Amino acid sequence: MDFEVDLDFGDDGLVTVVAQDVETEEVVMLAHATREAVEKTVETDRAHYYSRSREELWEKGATSGHTQEIEEIRVDCDGDALLYRVHQSGGACHTGYHSCFHRTLDGEVVGEQVFDPDDVY
Amino acid sequence: MDFEVDLDFGDDGLVTVVAQDVETEEVVMLAHATREAVEKTVETDRAHYYSRSREELWEKGATSGHTQEIEEIRVDCDGDALLYRVHQSGGACHTGYHSCFHRTLDGEVVGEQVFDPDDVY
Repeated sequence: MDFEVDLDFGDDGLVTVVAQDVETEEVVMLAHATREAVEKTVETDRAHYYSRSREELWEKGATSGHTQEIEEIRVDCDGDALLYRVHQSGGACHTGYHSCFHRTLDGEVVGEQVFDPDDVY
Repeated sequence: MDFEVDLDFGDDGLVTVVAQDVETEEVVMLAHATREAVEKTVETDRAHYYSRSREELWEKGATSGHTQEIEEIRVDCDGDALLYRVHQSGGACHTGYHSCFHRTLDGEVVGEQVFDPDDVY
């Protein structure tokens, strides 16, 4: 698949991906994607990523049901980062919070817990 | 400086940083930070990053005047990514756009150009 915008997958074959909930405008997670993961995302309109630790492509929500339906994909100026603008089902974070960014650097919890991870994983 | 939340600077000494404009809720850029850059950010309430290409700490807006005043710093669940929630002066992108993420993967320009880079750099 050719994209209209050139992407820079770098030496490791990855772009960084920021996911933002279009309903709340919250930044919900940060992850990485290979070209194949971006292609799967475009083909299915569901967010796919690449796990560096498990060394595999994964679809967000395949296990938890907390999928991310793509509204739009944006590319940054130098083509090495993507912004997935998504409709987030349930919570993006494996800890049960809507966003992985649910704490401040001061340790204050500012995000909302939307599910019990023990019920899901 | 000790932070209340443990940060994971990894093998390369960096965390990934997403900057989000608190007024428009736009994701405006993605960059990296060393511990020193995060400390400078906390001390000055202005966003600091680390340039991997120039191998130096930099303050956003030091050249362009397009600074980022910090409202809040959030940390993701595994401590290797930060979200700088900022008041963005001018535009975040060196191309003159408010956000570096001003294009879709289809090549459509969806962001707003707020300055002429020839006037600034």
